[in-house]
Amino acid sequence: MLNLTFLKNNLVAAINTAMKAVPTRTSLPILECFLLEAKYDTVTLTANDMEMAVKTTVDAEVEENGHIAVDAKVFSEIVRKLPEDEVNISVTENLQVRITSGKAHFEIAGKDGEDFVDMPIMEKGTPVVVSQMTLKDIIEETIFSIAPNENNKMMTGELFEINNNVLRVAALDGHRIAIRYSVLPDFYERKAVIVPGKTLNDISRILSGDASKTVNIYMGRNNILFEFDKTQLMSRLIEGEYFRINQMISDNYETKLVFNRRELLDCIERSVLLVRESDKKPLILDIRDGGTVLSLNSVIGSMKEELEPEKEGKDLLIGFNPRFLSDALRAVSDEKVNLYLSNSRAPGYIRDDEGTYIYLILPVNFVAR
Amino acid sequence: MLNLTFLKNNLVAAINTAMKAVPTRTSLPILECFLLEAKYDTVTLTANDMEMAVKTTVDAEVEENGHIAVDAKVFSEIVRKLPEDEVNISVTENLQVRITSGKAHFEIAGKDGEDFVDMPIMEKGTPVVVSQMTLKDIIEETIFSIAPNENNKMMTGELFEINNNVLRVAALDGHRIAIRYSVLPDFYERKAVIVPGKTLNDISRILSGDASKTVNIYMGRNNILFEFDKTQLMSRLIEGEYFRINQMISDNYETKLVFNRRELLDCIERSVLLVRESDKKPLILDIRDGGTVLSLNSVIGSMKEELEPEKEGKDLLIGFNPRFLSDALRAVSDEKVNLYLSNSRAPGYIRDDEGTYIYLILPVNFVAR
Repeated sequence: MLNLTFLKNNLVAAINTAMKAVPTRTSLPILECFLLEAKYDTVTLTANDMEMAVKTTVDAEVEENGHIAVDAKVFSEIVRKLPEDEVNISVTENLQVRITSGKAHFEIAGKDGEDFVDMPIMEKGTPVVVSQMTLKDIIEETIFSIAPNENNKMMTGELFEINNNVLRVAALDGHRIAIRYSVLPDFYERKAVIVPGKTLNDISRILSGDASKTVNIYMGRNNILFEFDKTQLMSRLIEGEYFRINQMISDNYETKLVFNRRELLDCIERSVLLVRESDKKPLILDIRDGGTVLSLNSVIGSMKEELEPEKEGKDLLIGFNPRFLSDALRAVSDEKVNLYLSNSRAPGYIRDDEGTYIYLILPVNFVAR
Repeated sequence: MLNLTFLKNNLVAAINTAMKAVPTRTSLPILECFLLEAKYDTVTLTANDMEMAVKTTVDAEVEENGHIAVDAKVFSEIVRKLPEDEVNISVTENLQVRITSGKAHFEIAGKDGEDFVDMPIMEKGTPVVVSQMTLKDIIEETIFSIAPNENNKMMTGELFEINNNVLRVAALDGHRIAIRYSVLPDFYERKAVIVPGKTLNDISRILSGDASKTVNIYMGRNNILFEFDKTQLMSRLIEGEYFRINQMISDNYETKLVFNRRELLDCIERSVLLVRESDKKPLILDIRDGGTVLSLNSVIGSMKEELEPEKEGKDLLIGFNPRFLSDALRAVSDEKVNLYLSNSRAPGYIRDDEGTYIYLILPVNFVAR
């Protein structure tokens, strides 16, 4: 039967990656396991929660090829705490898994690898190639705009759209839209899929963010596959056609403000202290030539602060959910940000001159005092 | 009315200290407040949850003496996020509290300071003087042995006993006892009180742990007062006479083991991975001349590891709750630890030769296999 020797750190790294696809609750107990498959000098760990599957390989001394399923949580906790750099894993005929490191010996029950639900097979075609850094950044800079609940399935995912050499990623929740554009090294045919938010959160945590490493993305009909380093991550796609975001976005404006981003963000984060989770008090911007006064009144108290952005165009009084503003401002790293406005009932846009991001936020009605 | 100017960092430090006595839930809304009392060039912050009260002073420019109560949580969140180093606080005639820093202005509702329930007054007498480091350490090294629930009120507190120049602190939960001795610079009459565990947890978090700074402890009939730095912390005592721990402790033993503490602790922490919160699987020590085998069997799996402590006396097979052993071993910093045993039904003792600590742990019955 199986007899494998690992370097502990390598095995722990593989466990950390595969763990993302282990479901916390499931009606199918085998899914709480990792599948370990040994072949020549590598072992592949697979986890699958039926929405997403992860496969990652780790170097090992393999005495005999084979496979076994082990409880992912127990296995991972034990391996992490082992005393020595070297870890030996062997399997007895009755599927007991023996884990040995130095003088420490553990034995846990394994399960037949045949019962494991493996990652689906996918026809790969040509991959879209992006850097790990780009993919990680683009996810983190948009993911907060997806809807948290499942009332509208489409809103819980993100649009991934390739057009020539541009990757566009968009998320919206009915109150705001986040869009990021990234220029790719190569050109591709147009393709658009909707990727579940959970998948994107998981992959952004696994990705190293290294600009010199790449990810191959294969977009299938029902699945998307990300290949990078020693890892494959496959996820179901959300079916259907995404919202027509081009029609929601306008280039027109009547007022343009240029803020110091940090100053604006700090002021907004202070205002949020007066807003309890449940209520929706708007932050009101009173925009005039002399300066912009931001104010908020709630049951907790009131705040007022004057900033001095560069201003072009009309004076305006407009209210926003301050959390939506701060989410967008945190996703930007520029020193200066532009806020484009038309009137108190039209969306505000935070967008840069280079066209790498657009954050659209709907205003909130309020009673002027 | 009140008009105060603080350095933000000083005010934040005082808030952090006083916050410990703000109740999370209370039927008396005024207790969710800090009382701010301004007098000449200092402001005193007071919080009181009726079990424990904290007073701490902070330097300030005071334009007029007076007092006001403000919601502790809201006040603390706002002050922390203020933009500048200087913070001005003023109170209007209708008890609105204005907080200003740079261009940021906040206003929250205050409450009449007269309604605040102040710290009780106590006849002080002579204090017991200990270093902040000693008090902090002695609490952290015993507090884990108090009982978590209120079934037996006395077990939720710790014995603080002064005898001549020795401070003895003890905690027990019916399965184990933790005792620490500390030699004080001065001599005192015998005194013993039972201090609530919550108070001790809070004070250990406020104390700096500085060996050169002292704490004055005043032990009253119903209350205990700790004075240190710019802070007074007063707590109710638990009424009654503490368990007679001297009678529970014995110096006799039939087996003595000397372990490398880190090695033993690591092995025990690995064994705990196989024990779910709810079940009480013992860690079994099979003690022989050649070595001690530690093993544990649970529904999750089994482990076995051999250590080679120095051994004196009889062979023995004995079982312990591994979490109790690891709690005690973590509270010790010595490189070597002594474990004294008599038989499989008698308590085990972890104690040092110098008599600074005793950890008594009752063994667990088990079926030898």
